[in-house]
Amino acid sequence: MRDLLFGTPTVVAAGVDVFSDALRAQGADVHDVDWRPPGLGDPADLATLALDRRRAAANRTAVERVMAAGSRLVDVRPARDVLGLPDRTLLHAGPPIGWDDASGPLRGALIGACLFEGWASTVEEAERLLASGGIALDPCHHHRAVGPMAGVTSPSMWTWCLEDPVTGGRAFCNLNEGLGKVLRMGAYNDEVLARLRWMRDVLGPVLQAAVRSMADPLDVKAVLAQMLQMGDEGHNRNRAGSLMTLRELSPAVVEVDAPSSDIAAVLRFIGGNEHFFLNLGMPTAKLALDAARDVPGSTMVTVMSRNGTEFGIQTAGTGDRWFTGPANTPVGLFLGDYGPDDANPDIGDSAIMETYGVGGFTMAAAPAIVRFVGGTVPDALATTERMYQLTLAENPAMQVPILGFRGSPTGIDVLAVARTGWLPQINTGMAGRVAGTGQVGAGLVQPPRECFEQALAALAAEARVA
Amino acid sequence: MRDLLFGTPTVVAAGVDVFSDALRAQGADVHDVDWRPPGLGDPADLATLALDRRRAAANRTAVERVMAAGSRLVDVRPARDVLGLPDRTLLHAGPPIGWDDASGPLRGALIGACLFEGWASTVEEAERLLASGGIALDPCHHHRAVGPMAGVTSPSMWTWCLEDPVTGGRAFCNLNEGLGKVLRMGAYNDEVLARLRWMRDVLGPVLQAAVRSMADPLDVKAVLAQMLQMGDEGHNRNRAGSLMTLRELSPAVVEVDAPSSDIAAVLRFIGGNEHFFLNLGMPTAKLALDAARDVPGSTMVTVMSRNGTEFGIQTAGTGDRWFTGPANTPVGLFLGDYGPDDANPDIGDSAIMETYGVGGFTMAAAPAIVRFVGGTVPDALATTERMYQLTLAENPAMQVPILGFRGSPTGIDVLAVARTGWLPQINTGMAGRVAGTGQVGAGLVQPPRECFEQALAALAAEARVA
Repeated sequence: MRDLLFGTPTVVAAGVDVFSDALRAQGADVHDVDWRPPGLGDPADLATLALDRRRAAANRTAVERVMAAGSRLVDVRPARDVLGLPDRTLLHAGPPIGWDDASGPLRGALIGACLFEGWASTVEEAERLLASGGIALDPCHHHRAVGPMAGVTSPSMWTWCLEDPVTGGRAFCNLNEGLGKVLRMGAYNDEVLARLRWMRDVLGPVLQAAVRSMADPLDVKAVLAQMLQMGDEGHNRNRAGSLMTLRELSPAVVEVDAPSSDIAAVLRFIGGNEHFFLNLGMPTAKLALDAARDVPGSTMVTVMSRNGTEFGIQTAGTGDRWFTGPANTPVGLFLGDYGPDDANPDIGDSAIMETYGVGGFTMAAAPAIVRFVGGTVPDALATTERMYQLTLAENPAMQVPILGFRGSPTGIDVLAVARTGWLPQINTGMAGRVAGTGQVGAGLVQPPRECFEQALAALAAEARVA
Repeated sequence: MRDLLFGTPTVVAAGVDVFSDALRAQGADVHDVDWRPPGLGDPADLATLALDRRRAAANRTAVERVMAAGSRLVDVRPARDVLGLPDRTLLHAGPPIGWDDASGPLRGALIGACLFEGWASTVEEAERLLASGGIALDPCHHHRAVGPMAGVTSPSMWTWCLEDPVTGGRAFCNLNEGLGKVLRMGAYNDEVLARLRWMRDVLGPVLQAAVRSMADPLDVKAVLAQMLQMGDEGHNRNRAGSLMTLRELSPAVVEVDAPSSDIAAVLRFIGGNEHFFLNLGMPTAKLALDAARDVPGSTMVTVMSRNGTEFGIQTAGTGDRWFTGPANTPVGLFLGDYGPDDANPDIGDSAIMETYGVGGFTMAAAPAIVRFVGGTVPDALATTERMYQLTLAENPAMQVPILGFRGSPTGIDVLAVARTGWLPQINTGMAGRVAGTGQVGAGLVQPPRECFEQALAALAAEARVA
């Protein structure tokens, strides 16, 4: 005690540097500890997880499964046949939700799907049917499927069928309609329904025949990797990916037994849609993240998804349980005369791309995307750099050339999010708030903190009983 | 005089700062002039041009013509019909050259062209014919044409016919064969000749019919601009450009009246060749630079081109006159077991891309190219930055996203090259030194100083009499 009062103190300082600077100015021997208060969540939960002996190995297992997974395009089939849909069921993006809580674009897409399936012949009839519970709603994610934006998938829609050659797992996604007035953005006018019927009657059958005729199935993961070398990030910039898909499919497409005008229309449709690849990229990410499900002790995120009202996440250590919070509204650039008041809160399963470590996480690979989602080129670079702080690994298959071919930041760690308080950066399309509007823009958004606070608590509770 | 000796001196110092630093340390009033000795050429020539009152306006005119030019794909026709070739004439890349001085790959390509045209039935017969002067040789550039690598263009080859909607000018280039064992790299085996015959009999006619059926001609300049947003630089990385070309042509191709197996083969050929676009990009650059020919007083370079032995340039102020020097040998990465000893000196008209301000000048837009031509990502960024010092303008149509969408460095100024001593940076394919070898790699190369020294002297001589 006497030493403490009269000896020369050696001070260990944690946190803000005002204290240590003042001591240092007085000639004291100060050792700084780089410490910050936890960014979010209960510090006790954070401590429990930090000390969980299973964690390091479990996270390594989870993220290695993600990185090892492959993705082959093995078939194109109607959703009815592959998703095991009971009659009068529609799938949607995000965590579970009912009609009463559904936002405008989800309602619009559900209405459109009822019209498309012939379950209703007017908008009013469809609304009554949906409001009365006459149509069952279920998340895509509960059926090994993903859907961009509203994500509404109905039995007559054709789906890409992807297979992971490592695990044999499968994942599914419907076909991308293009931009603007489209069902997934909540539009359901005649133009939308006519396009869906053409996709059902012409596009789907031609693609099925073409894909089935290919000697080697398309390696979708390889296309995604190549996209990052070509200025795409795989979520809101899919230009190179869509072109490579066209290149890979077109020789088989032209040999399909169909009128040459249909063949030309199919090639024009694919060639005219810069987001055509997205619906192949999403199930590729889904395959990889499904491979990492159910790894006890892992704090890695396996799903980030939004239904337009709530944002939900799942983790490898907590199985199929959803952790949800109110969805934020993206900030970005608007089409035509639309503005911030027109934008619906965040919607879609497409944040599976960021969950996989691309999209918003690899914006450094796609500087031109700032012209579509907003921000600046330095922002895009800084975002990718920041995401390395939240993730478990760098995926050697997904390289970012401008960062000296560094692998993409992969495997979001709930613990890292809680420690830093930084949230995953997602880029996203923006649907109009009012049902029937369609796309109003694209922008940047983050998950609500609540998802990660709940996930942290659940992971810690599991760790205490493990 | 007394003032000079006893007053406080005010010193103006030019060049290295040792002198001014020493004076400043002694309290003298020193004004530094940012001056360096000329990098190359006769200082008197440099002074003459620096003081030429026509220069600023002439260079502005020249570079604005380059930037204003457009490029539309208006037809596909045999070289015989569009290039006004006399019988038994072959075009080649670079400045004029005869058989005796031709390097291996140029000889190989000339031999192959004689076999392809049926002017000889054996390699020996072709060599005798060429050595005896039985075949006239003429630069592509003398026929409003350009050709990559050896650039050998024979009457039966099909050519892209491009038109500048601003001036009505036309430019031509044959069709790209792909990589590896190809005529333009000096190979002439059966595989090469069989491919050329297929291109003559199937690819050319299908492309002609497709291009002629298109309601809107392909805007090749727009494709080139988009490529820079997609990780291509337009010379040795044409992946996105080739895919966009496939996308634009394929709907018209599938409606051509030809067997579906031929249609599929055409799509596979285009889709399998990541350099397919190069032969559209080159005449696009040629159109723009031809628009800037013959601007008296302009020191802007209008051609950089190599025949495998000599490198030649032309300038806007000196018309069709060539300024030549011995071609350097590229340094880069090699295919398979090839190494530096296998590489021929620099060859091809494709440096028209750098003359236009892309290719090596926009490597910052294409960081992944370092995996093909060598160097590092920081090198690629630094190269583009350096080229801004040699050029007259930034082309707003050709933007480099990673540099905050800065326009490409456009219009090489002979005066700037002479002042700095820095040479334009070109990236290039490497042909095997021995006739018949084909491609051995790709790399980086610069023009010899002699070209710029001669051009500087000629421009100064012209300025003195103007």
